[in-house]
Amino acid sequence: MTDRKIPREAGDDYSPAAIRARQEFVRTHTDSAAEHVASYSLDPATLPGNIESFFGVAQVPMGLAGPLLVDGEHAQGEFFVQLATTEGTLVASYNRGMKLCRAAGGVTTTVIDDRMQRAPVFSFADAREARAFSLWLDEHLEEIAAAAEATTSSGKLLDIQKFPVSKLLYTRFNYSTGDAAGQNLTGKATFAACAWIKQHYPGELHFLLEGQFATDKKTSVVNMLHTRGKRVVAEITLPAALVEEQMHVSTDKLYNARMRGQLGSIMSVTNNNGNHSANGITAIFIATGQDVANVAESSALYGFSELLPNGDLYASVTLPSLIVATYGGGTGLATQRECLELLGCYGTGKVRKLAEIIAATVLAGELSLGSAVVAEEWVQSHDELGRNRP
Amino acid sequence: MTDRKIPREAGDDYSPAAIRARQEFVRTHTDSAAEHVASYSLDPATLPGNIESFFGVAQVPMGLAGPLLVDGEHAQGEFFVQLATTEGTLVASYNRGMKLCRAAGGVTTTVIDDRMQRAPVFSFADAREARAFSLWLDEHLEEIAAAAEATTSSGKLLDIQKFPVSKLLYTRFNYSTGDAAGQNLTGKATFAACAWIKQHYPGELHFLLEGQFATDKKTSVVNMLHTRGKRVVAEITLPAALVEEQMHVSTDKLYNARMRGQLGSIMSVTNNNGNHSANGITAIFIATGQDVANVAESSALYGFSELLPNGDLYASVTLPSLIVATYGGGTGLATQRECLELLGCYGTGKVRKLAEIIAATVLAGELSLGSAVVAEEWVQSHDELGRNRP
Amino acid sequence: MTDRKIPREAGDDYSPAAIRARQEFVRTHTDSAAEHVASYSLDPATLPGNIESFFGVAQVPMGLAGPLLVDGEHAQGEFFVQLATTEGTLVASYNRGMKLCRAAGGVTTTVIDDRMQRAPVFSFADAREARAFSLWLDEHLEEIAAAAEATTSSGKLLDIQKFPVSKLLYTRFNYSTGDAAGQNLTGKATFAACAWIKQHYPGELHFLLEGQFATDKKTSVVNMLHTRGKRVVAEITLPAALVEEQMHVSTDKLYNARMRGQLGSIMSVTNNNGNHSANGITAIFIATGQDVANVAESSALYGFSELLPNGDLYASVTLPSLIVATYGGGTGLATQRECLELLGCYGTGKVRKLAEIIAATVLAGELSLGSAVVAEEWVQSHDELGRNRP
Amino acid sequence: MTDRKIPREAGDDYSPAAIRARQEFVRTHTDSAAEHVASYSLDPATLPGNIESFFGVAQVPMGLAGPLLVDGEHAQGEFFVQLATTEGTLVASYNRGMKLCRAAGGVTTTVIDDRMQRAPVFSFADAREARAFSLWLDEHLEEIAAAAEATTSSGKLLDIQKFPVSKLLYTRFNYSTGDAAGQNLTGKATFAACAWIKQHYPGELHFLLEGQFATDKKTSVVNMLHTRGKRVVAEITLPAALVEEQMHVSTDKLYNARMRGQLGSIMSVTNNNGNHSANGITAIFIATGQDVANVAESSALYGFSELLPNGDLYASVTLPSLIVATYGGGTGLATQRECLELLGCYGTGKVRKLAEIIAATVLAGELSLGSAVVAEEWVQSHDELGRNRP
Repeated sequence: MTDRKIPREAGDDYSPAAIRARQEFVRTHTDSAAEHVASYSLDPATLPGNIESFFGVAQVPMGLAGPLLVDGEHAQGEFFVQLATTEGTLVASYNRGMKLCRAAGGVTTTVIDDRMQRAPVFSFADAREARAFSLWLDEHLEEIAAAAEATTSSGKLLDIQKFPVSKLLYTRFNYSTGDAAGQNLTGKATFAACAWIKQHYPGELHFLLEGQFATDKKTSVVNMLHTRGKRVVAEITLPAALVEEQMHVSTDKLYNARMRGQLGSIMSVTNNNGNHSANGITAIFIATGQDVANVAESSALYGFSELLPNGDLYASVTLPSLIVATYGGGTGLATQRECLELLGCYGTGKVRKLAEIIAATVLAGELSLGSAVVAEEWVQSHDELGRNRP
Repeated sequence: MTDRKIPREAGDDYSPAAIRARQEFVRTHTDSAAEHVASYSLDPATLPGNIESFFGVAQVPMGLAGPLLVDGEHAQGEFFVQLATTEGTLVASYNRGMKLCRAAGGVTTTVIDDRMQRAPVFSFADAREARAFSLWLDEHLEEIAAAAEATTSSGKLLDIQKFPVSKLLYTRFNYSTGDAAGQNLTGKATFAACAWIKQHYPGELHFLLEGQFATDKKTSVVNMLHTRGKRVVAEITLPAALVEEQMHVSTDKLYNARMRGQLGSIMSVTNNNGNHSANGITAIFIATGQDVANVAESSALYGFSELLPNGDLYASVTLPSLIVATYGGGTGLATQRECLELLGCYGTGKVRKLAEIIAATVLAGELSLGSAVVAEEWVQSHDELGRNRP
Repeated sequence: MTDRKIPREAGDDYSPAAIRARQEFVRTHTDSAAEHVASYSLDPATLPGNIESFFGVAQVPMGLAGPLLVDGEHAQGEFFVQLATTEGTLVASYNRGMKLCRAAGGVTTTVIDDRMQRAPVFSFADAREARAFSLWLDEHLEEIAAAAEATTSSGKLLDIQKFPVSKLLYTRFNYSTGDAAGQNLTGKATFAACAWIKQHYPGELHFLLEGQFATDKKTSVVNMLHTRGKRVVAEITLPAALVEEQMHVSTDKLYNARMRGQLGSIMSVTNNNGNHSANGITAIFIATGQDVANVAESSALYGFSELLPNGDLYASVTLPSLIVATYGGGTGLATQRECLELLGCYGTGKVRKLAEIIAATVLAGELSLGSAVVAEEWVQSHDELGRNRP
Repeated sequence: MTDRKIPREAGDDYSPAAIRARQEFVRTHTDSAAEHVASYSLDPATLPGNIESFFGVAQVPMGLAGPLLVDGEHAQGEFFVQLATTEGTLVASYNRGMKLCRAAGGVTTTVIDDRMQRAPVFSFADAREARAFSLWLDEHLEEIAAAAEATTSSGKLLDIQKFPVSKLLYTRFNYSTGDAAGQNLTGKATFAACAWIKQHYPGELHFLLEGQFATDKKTSVVNMLHTRGKRVVAEITLPAALVEEQMHVSTDKLYNARMRGQLGSIMSVTNNNGNHSANGITAIFIATGQDVANVAESSALYGFSELLPNGDLYASVTLPSLIVATYGGGTGLATQRECLELLGCYGTGKVRKLAEIIAATVLAGELSLGSAVVAEEWVQSHDELGRNRP
């Protein structure tokens, strides 16, 4: 082991000198020229709270897709959507889907639930004590909520779900969190709630702040059933003739392919009976300063379609655990803020609008790729637009 | 509906003029100044094949963590790891885990499987015809492989897995794909294979190139069982005293907490009985030009620990579907290439090295967060380092 | 196609003549002598409501195991448990586990939840109408409960869980059902509730009485998370020396084997991280006139163990969806009633007692088989006691 | 604790005296008259190998359904099916489905896979040793098969599937098992194989005979993907007019209801996107001496339907893990054998015939209940035929 140590500066670790020292360190101790990573326009003074040991940026190219016509309760009208990706054909494919949706009258979007959670697990001597605690919890909900909410201005405790097993009680503390994604807010509030509980519960208990029932950064059935972040639906009815004309497939072929895909999803046991929601979500998340690791859970999707008697196709996606913010996290950084502004989603009161735009984008992408697979144009388009890939 | 249309240039859509036109379009038609997004050092001439309708970049801040001591078969020695993220505490937390692992002698890493697939589904008149086709497939495997491999220089068809149901045969065409991630390569090869099959199979059949059994961009049990991309293990044995000293928890408390977390994972039905693999994987993926949407599947994790009789803790993570490339995709772009070079992973013959470094990073992060939750330092560290988050 | 038609008698299809006619029919039209099946002591007059087209009985041999020492809230003391099975070693294995548990002071049992459901799905024109209906449902809960409960003397509507997706609202109508299992009761009550809803809801809606969210006769995550029937825990702490003496294994070997089994359960994705709960449950269900098809869901199990610092082993099973009755169904038939009486569980007010006995039996069986696998006595015991099997 | 001890007789525990002693014991020490349970025609001398501590029988009433018209490869023609159950309406409902299927030309059945497994897990010092062992296993497959097959006359080792994780290798030893279900056969053979491996493998290894990857008595994704027992398909195409006439629903209503049920299945995460396969399977299993606990896994079902352009409905069920025997286990007992003879399935060479009959029965039951739910006749029929249930 060598003694190479990443330079850090106690006073201001975001100062030009501190950053430069790390860039030099990289140049000296690795094979990287660290030239492009050192080229950025953001102001490092904005970075505390977002990153430690900063030394440069990743430049992720962005393409523009749209117009995306949305008939939401929060997003209304035409949007252009920036997609940050290095995957050839992605922007083109989403753009194609948006064109189809616009011609069909636009995508209807609805946020149907909204909650963020932290999920402590409480342990006891035996199952009966766990059950007694569960009842006590119900009786003291108000005080627990007060303790939790004392730590936050924007979070409200909605309810506590309980999942008893053995001598343990797994819980989900569900909060509304305003325009923030809310993972930290709920962590802090729930920690305070647990401290209050520990102090006031007459019996003995142990708790862990996270019992893997909020499954932060991990997709799960419980999050899909009970919502994490926004639960948002995007719907459209596509005329048969329009699909034939633009996508070169008949709606019944599209529907039948989807049914075979769905059985494949059931058998392979995915968290997503659609096509590629992660593509659009990731590209928007990177662009707008979301916590991109949340793609693991946010890309979960329930698709539902109907072939109507007249041949038209009703198509919908429900994103049950879409975690987004328009405030806090990376949303205020240089390019990230510009991208939120591009969507008209920067700042307070905009988070459901962002959720709706993302859901509409996902639906457009599902229809585009779904059609391409059936029309056997998929491989061909990658050949034409994805040349960088072997 | 307006007639606003994203400017495109038929000749060279990556020319300065074409890009500028789109930036102006953004400034005119949205609330975004598009100033920082227009500031980049990458050469747009490198972008065809990676993005369409390019108009700027996302600047994602990167921090440096390490040294990470790895005892792999491909990665050997100390590494510094750049993490692209906007989540405060992430870099600090991974760094803390890396310090622990280094003090314990480093992380042992092993790639135990390596395969990428495309998964066509074949349909027939009834189950017996599907079964007959399944046998025919076995008999013609060599010719099918030849047809597939004619389309690629680096892909080899390893085998075809078969999952019969009803009158359908779902398959997985498994390939080795060299240093490429291989999704496009396998798509093209499998399309050629299916074309050959369609031409030569004496009976009637229909196929869809993707039957949702490769679950591209979607996590699934089948991918976790049978590998998608790299299946890689990172292991370590941590002395009890070291854990106590550095993480302020005893190994038995850590182990017991893990067991409660694991039951939580089982009940909530996640694809990951660990803590937050998506954090480290996403941060490396953004930095190194991976297809970040693959985080959906790549973050799947099997954790396994043992508390040894002497109190030491054996800890391991297995990433069963880690999709990485050191060639193709976004790996050659400006900052992305520099980051791969930082890790000593740019270019051919490096992909398993990258997989090992990522697995070791993930293990470091699991130990760090796992300890913080038990030591109840988790909320506190977010308070100190994650100030940007409400 | 022939014209063979099973004889039926319009007047009394359970009359000796009607039954004899069917027995003759079997003898004439099949290769069966139908001699033993025609030999029974039950009175066919008791069968209307339990079976149609009755022609005989299956004689399923029963063995006796015990004493099983239970420290429950409803079951207190020693019980002998009749097990109806044709699998050699099953009774012996359970008996061995019961002996161990008795020597360790008995099994503690606790019913921690109790609910039965029917799960209608409601469909609308779009997601917003579904959401509006969801709110309406909350506002009219009292009237809906009244409509439901008007159909039953023993059922009470506890709450309605809601799972929105697309333009649909899946629900779970949760009821307490007294000593009945309650599937029919809840079906009837929920049908009445839906009729009331359909009549009073101002908008247009369609419903299906079962949307596969109660998953009757099918195991499911939702039933494991949210209980179907009884949620019951059985716990015990086993002294290390006792386990060594009776089971010929050390508790740490047993625990480590369990951990490997548990990882296997996670990877193979079972509804049961234990060993063979279905064996004991099925054998008691057949004996006591339960709806044996419910084994599909009732055998779901969460196991949780801890190796204590002194080497003793805490072991528990939680059965989250155990469906049992001591009233209605087959519980009043000749041998079935005798078996319920054998357990002291016949009639009203006994259903939780039965649930506790079953859970304790399951725990005994888990410990017995778990030990045998580790002690490598498993194959051997089947060789000795399971001779009828090839 | 009392000293009540179940009487056992060292010499012949199946002698009339031994049995009588236990019946007396029951009468003395419990509230049961043990009168009907003591009434049976089976010869206790046939019971060794099937049950220990025998003291009586459960009399389970059986009804007759049919004719069931099957166009299988093993089952050909009309069958009458005995169903052992205490659930009112079950026989009537299956009978109704069989009538529909017969009118539509019968059910086509196909066994598409057939294998039984035992699943040892092997442990090593680290992941690399586990990987080395995995290769060694491939190289010695022939010798391992020889060791396994030396213990059985009817079992053949087909292959060994491998699922590596951490420092462990989970395996599935897949066998063909003739007319036996094969759980004991494969247990014994695999134990011998493991003994050979332990003796010949040059490195150090530990194994457990069952690593929860065969999931005996527990449903699992791995068994549904890779078959346990028989994988059998039942298919039919139903004319629209026939469905309307007999079931009082239109095929498109039936299909649409099914699609909503299927989404419910996906969301609730069942092992079965159908209706109630466990009902028919359990009733046949009890009657024919199958290991009824296997209902937990055997009731798993993949349903797949298509609404044809002309309005006819293609419907199919695939049972991926149907465990059945016509030899061994309880198949030779008095009533059990008569029931197998009733189906023409007793003895060697009949097991696939039995699997086909069961699959056809399941399909009939799915169509019957599926229609009743849509026609809203379900609750009503239970009211009429299920009077014994509250």
